[in-house]
Amino acid sequence: MSKGSVKFESPVYICASASVVGKKESEGPLGDLFDRVEEDDLVGGKTWEEAEENLQKKAVEVLLDKAGVSPEDIDVMYAGDLLAQSMASNFGLSSFGIPFYGLYGACSTCGESLGLGSMAILAGLVKRVVCVTSSHFASAEKEFRYPLEYGNQRPLSASWTVTGSGAFLLSGEAASPRARITGLTIGQIVDSGIKDSMNMGACMAPAVASTLERHFRDFDVEPEAYDRIITGDLGKVGQQILFDLMQEKGYDITSQHMDCGIEIFDGEKQDTHAGGSGCGCCAVTLSAYILRQIESGLWKKVLFIPTGALLSKVSFNEGNTVPGIAQAVVIEQP
Amino acid sequence: MSKGSVKFESPVYICASASVVGKKESEGPLGDLFDRVEEDDLVGGKTWEEAEENLQKKAVEVLLDKAGVSPEDIDVMYAGDLLAQSMASNFGLSSFGIPFYGLYGACSTCGESLGLGSMAILAGLVKRVVCVTSSHFASAEKEFRYPLEYGNQRPLSASWTVTGSGAFLLSGEAASPRARITGLTIGQIVDSGIKDSMNMGACMAPAVASTLERHFRDFDVEPEAYDRIITGDLGKVGQQILFDLMQEKGYDITSQHMDCGIEIFDGEKQDTHAGGSGCGCCAVTLSAYILRQIESGLWKKVLFIPTGALLSKVSFNEGNTVPGIAQAVVIEQP
Repeated sequence: MSKGSVKFESPVYICASASVVGKKESEGPLGDLFDRVEEDDLVGGKTWEEAEENLQKKAVEVLLDKAGVSPEDIDVMYAGDLLAQSMASNFGLSSFGIPFYGLYGACSTCGESLGLGSMAILAGLVKRVVCVTSSHFASAEKEFRYPLEYGNQRPLSASWTVTGSGAFLLSGEAASPRARITGLTIGQIVDSGIKDSMNMGACMAPAVASTLERHFRDFDVEPEAYDRIITGDLGKVGQQILFDLMQEKGYDITSQHMDCGIEIFDGEKQDTHAGGSGCGCCAVTLSAYILRQIESGLWKKVLFIPTGALLSKVSFNEGNTVPGIAQAVVIEQP
Repeated sequence: MSKGSVKFESPVYICASASVVGKKESEGPLGDLFDRVEEDDLVGGKTWEEAEENLQKKAVEVLLDKAGVSPEDIDVMYAGDLLAQSMASNFGLSSFGIPFYGLYGACSTCGESLGLGSMAILAGLVKRVVCVTSSHFASAEKEFRYPLEYGNQRPLSASWTVTGSGAFLLSGEAASPRARITGLTIGQIVDSGIKDSMNMGACMAPAVASTLERHFRDFDVEPEAYDRIITGDLGKVGQQILFDLMQEKGYDITSQHMDCGIEIFDGEKQDTHAGGSGCGCCAVTLSAYILRQIESGLWKKVLFIPTGALLSKVSFNEGNTVPGIAQAVVIEQP
């Protein structure tokens, strides 16, 4: 196995999961599948940051409730979000008192958390791990782009940050697991020189292509090995670029590819342009939709690849590129 | 073993390490011990962010050079810094092409990276791991406080962000390791309600006390089990608070305690007030000083506890508290 790709010899199960989303997400194609819908954009908070903190907190509460465990039963938590200094996680999750590792992988963080959580279990060091990530449309616009009040126009290549948080309980033992994680291809930072923060699909597609090519080679598989190859939030523009890049590398993934950002909104009706994005996008889609498809037997094995665009408002304003990263996680029937 | 504390059954070695610091750090008490000194505050960059990116890049270059390995020999890299969206790591390390996990634990990130890197090795999934963290005085002031040009006054409780980056090579096998990591107590987020970003020692001390108390209980040891109990960047004010908090819990750690922030500068001569701080502070001190003391046999076993203050300029401006986190790593002679 080449560096960065690992196959798991022992079981790591996704025992339970939870999804909490905003109103707009509940009106999209997956709307009926989410565990909880917050009708209030501020999720009971006074600021957009507090809104996102509350999303993470509620996602973990729903998760623990669904799994029938208490915070004391959790050994360690891996969490992250898009805000500067990961404020949604640090403030949203402090009250649980669970040993904590904070992550930053932009919108790839859900994949990163599942990978790192799996490693802790495989090392035999912990029994139960919680992974949680989030994003919020308004906190992300404030963090990266313009104040909402400014009412800026959005090009068709722009994505719409999902308001939502997804949480997962991992364990090496489970009576009735939802799915099993069996391998990883860890992402590399890929900088293809693109600077357009209104076209993050284009920024991230080369990173996905890099991770996918390494994955196919390291695991010695073809795209057909998977019922779905699922990216986080490439959107429609990024998807097409990914198809082209993979074609150049000799792979046709058009039959297997699915993008959480494309699935979560009805782009035409909901005016979301290229699609949904954010740490929360693939997390709630994994919890509400992908795991259900695996449980129902419709999909036996998927490659889940959360994708991140590595920019800050400072790096953007200083004229830097937007590198991408893509963390691949093999998820299959238990 | 209680949740959050883990003892390692198999070896995890610190095989090599590197430290790169700025001019002021080279003039401090540990000045002669660092691998490389950057006389230019901008480290060859055009912005403060680029300066910090270059610090991380150089730290990894020095590490790989000292260890006699190439980027292709590294399976995965764990990295983080204090900037929004971890820009120093994401831009500074992209050229290595090493599979990458980004972390955010404020100034505790060095401990977090050593913990997560150890877990990957113990899981048997990877052979060689690089952990790297950094901070830069000017990029941190810009990120969290005032523009340098403003020339704000600093209270005596304020700390001085260290300009530096420390990098470590971990492996399960080593011909002549520098030290061995044998256990962790993973930090919890502790919010004691303090809001003063000019007194981060006070914000972080309760988190250290929490981690330390759990560590002593879970490992069933007393402070005397360690030659040194080494916090990251509590500074002089935070140190006194920690002593008081531990006294209340029934532990006297005054004989064993050392703080990297206090060691790295001569507070009187260098006008650094409470002491040094930042992700780079404990990382370069571990590399240049602590590991040397262990190698020389002066110290057999230390508890290394990088400490983080979880704030952003947004959380501060919105009137939030500054929670703390402290990640404990047991480091001993190989």
